Amino acid sequence: MIRHSATLAINEKLQAKRAAGEQVLHLGFGEAGLPVLPEVRDVLAGAAHRNEYGAVVGSAEARQAAAGYFSRRGLPTEADDIVLAPGSKALLFGLLAVLPGDVVLPQPSWVSYAAQAALLGRRVLGVPVPESAGGVPDPERLDRALTGARKDGAEPGVLILTVPDNPTGTLAGAELVKEVCAVAGAHGLTVLSDEIYRDLVHDSAEVRSPAAELPEHTVVTAGLSKNMALGGYRIGFARVPRPEQRAALVGVASEVWSSLPAPMQEVAAYVLAEPPEVRAHIDASRALHAAVARAVHAEFTAAGADCRAPQAGFYLYPDLEPLRAKGFTTGAQLAEHLLDRHGVGVLAGAEFGDDPAALRFRVATSLLYGDDAEQRWSALRSPDPVTLPWIARSLGHLRDALSAVLDGE
Amino acid sequence: MIRHSATLAINEKLQAKRAAGEQVLHLGFGEAGLPVLPEVRDVLAGAAHRNEYGAVVGSAEARQAAAGYFSRRGLPTEADDIVLAPGSKALLFGLLAVLPGDVVLPQPSWVSYAAQAALLGRRVLGVPVPESAGGVPDPERLDRALTGARKDGAEPGVLILTVPDNPTGTLAGAELVKEVCAVAGAHGLTVLSDEIYRDLVHDSAEVRSPAAELPEHTVVTAGLSKNMALGGYRIGFARVPRPEQRAALVGVASEVWSSLPAPMQEVAAYVLAEPPEVRAHIDASRALHAAVARAVHAEFTAAGADCRAPQAGFYLYPDLEPLRAKGFTTGAQLAEHLLDRHGVGVLAGAEFGDDPAALRFRVATSLLYGDDAEQRWSALRSPDPVTLPWIARSLGHLRDALSAVLDGE
Repeated sequence: MIRHSATLAINEKLQAKRAAGEQVLHLGFGEAGLPVLPEVRDVLAGAAHRNEYGAVVGSAEARQAAAGYFSRRGLPTEADDIVLAPGSKALLFGLLAVLPGDVVLPQPSWVSYAAQAALLGRRVLGVPVPESAGGVPDPERLDRALTGARKDGAEPGVLILTVPDNPTGTLAGAELVKEVCAVAGAHGLTVLSDEIYRDLVHDSAEVRSPAAELPEHTVVTAGLSKNMALGGYRIGFARVPRPEQRAALVGVASEVWSSLPAPMQEVAAYVLAEPPEVRAHIDASRALHAAVARAVHAEFTAAGADCRAPQAGFYLYPDLEPLRAKGFTTGAQLAEHLLDRHGVGVLAGAEFGDDPAALRFRVATSLLYGDDAEQRWSALRSPDPVTLPWIARSLGHLRDALSAVLDGE
Repeated sequence: MIRHSATLAINEKLQAKRAAGEQVLHLGFGEAGLPVLPEVRDVLAGAAHRNEYGAVVGSAEARQAAAGYFSRRGLPTEADDIVLAPGSKALLFGLLAVLPGDVVLPQPSWVSYAAQAALLGRRVLGVPVPESAGGVPDPERLDRALTGARKDGAEPGVLILTVPDNPTGTLAGAELVKEVCAVAGAHGLTVLSDEIYRDLVHDSAEVRSPAAELPEHTVVTAGLSKNMALGGYRIGFARVPRPEQRAALVGVASEVWSSLPAPMQEVAAYVLAEPPEVRAHIDASRALHAAVARAVHAEFTAAGADCRAPQAGFYLYPDLEPLRAKGFTTGAQLAEHLLDRHGVGVLAGAEFGDDPAALRFRVATSLLYGDDAEQRWSALRSPDPVTLPWIARSLGHLRDALSAVLDGE
């Protein structure tokens, strides 16, 4: 049986604790906790008369806008290449369903890739990420793993990359992407590149898409859940340049979800055309994500954690190996202790396919911006958001918790 | 490879023909071609700030309202029994993914059941429907087929029923449902009862849900696409009383679509509470569907077709066997001729699992109400909608086409 997605499950668990009056620091869920841009609300409201099923691939306007979105990011794209859906998760599932072969994953990687592969009865091959950044497997280990897997009778077919990455909050550099794609190409893999965090690179470093390296063999998925904080709108889109792959995906889409809701097609068309207010909103969100992720990173490193510096999105992936001396033997045990004793909710690395014995976990920093729309707008507009009282208080809660655990509490 | 859903595909094909200026009678797609109730538009507009992912099962308010919806229809239901999703199609897919065993289908039945089973690698066993109504297999033939299938090594596990039915537009009577459920129960099947047309029974005859016959072994799916003409909103909900089945469904949901979009949860909560204006809208829609389906039925029977009288929804399933004398040997050939020579778009019975040689097809009558919101509101408010010029013109187009085919054209 497929378990309830670990990220969604911890979100529901932590929300229930809060509803019960517990003081909980919610670092468990990658929801971009920010308000809806007013112009987006207006577009949705103005599209409420749209009740037709429409085309499975999406509306002409939304596809055209999505093509422009990719084209402006160095990936020339036609409207015909685009498929919209209720979430990029649904697209990833549909693509895994139609792309043949065993699934190769970076380790750690987002919880749903392996779960989707399991649901589809597909074998998964995990390859550790390099020290420099997550979201891609170490190229040399990938090469060896693929060669070894074939010898063992496996048939690696799809390599999923996350650029930038969840859970590590890092961005694989252009050279690293190039090396990984060279290996993938040599082994005849199709790359499924999840680029949902692409617009949230903190210092606007270049994102090298695998689609630029292996244009004929890369499918890119993205969505509006992270850059625009529209998780609850469920808007995903994919760039699928090969007609036969697109036709196969549309077949699955037509039998599982039919289409992205018609009013949401208008939201997609509006946002993906990237008018100035949308760009300004994403710019402000990116700056806030960066400031808070850095502040949380500082707390973890001050507590002795080994942790890559955050480069994109709103995640950290600290390793608290020093705590093994305090009697912790698995990441899950440590995560449970942090939640039960110190009210800090994080997800153990094992949920992301990492070694269960490692004292690593994913920390999502995006639900620290406030408890209501007013606080969140203040955070978005603040030149120094980590000094806002509610954010400073959360950082203090984390500091005290880490210090207590280090003291054996 | 899973083909593009036949119903969605013909919709896109016919819309393209219309856009190209062709005069096409669109009888191919089960979209309830009616406008959005203004109060529903207001609810969606007022919910545009809702951007949280929320619980996979759906919001507390929407689940409570859905429980009330079922309870008022003779199926006592708790909010905990409910799962919402982006469309009942997604729920049917998720349920098929988690309910074990081969899939037993009435023949003919809606296009997506067999396609979903194929996508999940599941065996399908088709059993013809009785003369009296579609949506359920003939009970005696079902019993024989299940016994025979087991002897051949099959493991029938799930029986899908459609009450009322698409594609035949009929309602299996209480006695027939009881007999079918007795057979299903004796063979240990789980019944998946698709009741999306339940509110559209023309004369308000009692709908006997299989869930009343086999309460422990029936899952019911429904949605707002048909009764409220909100296909493009993609709102589905299911009644899954067994906790272990619900947990399994939620596992799949969490890895494929996450949740029904948050703004749509508010629409579901509003509609499923069934305030007076919602009931009045459904009443008016039902009367319109009934009037037009009856008028189209009259055209087909006048042309010599054998066709069950419409009882629910907006479908007919005529058999034009007399046309075999004119050289037609398959339903697909006849459907193609009707479209290419006479501009009448219907789907051949083979798309619904029927005998390809039969000259049967599904006729959807719900896109005849008008080309714009003004015409559609007029149709909804008309005491005698078939006399409205645009509907009368469509009926004339159909009459001329059938007459021409009978004349060998």
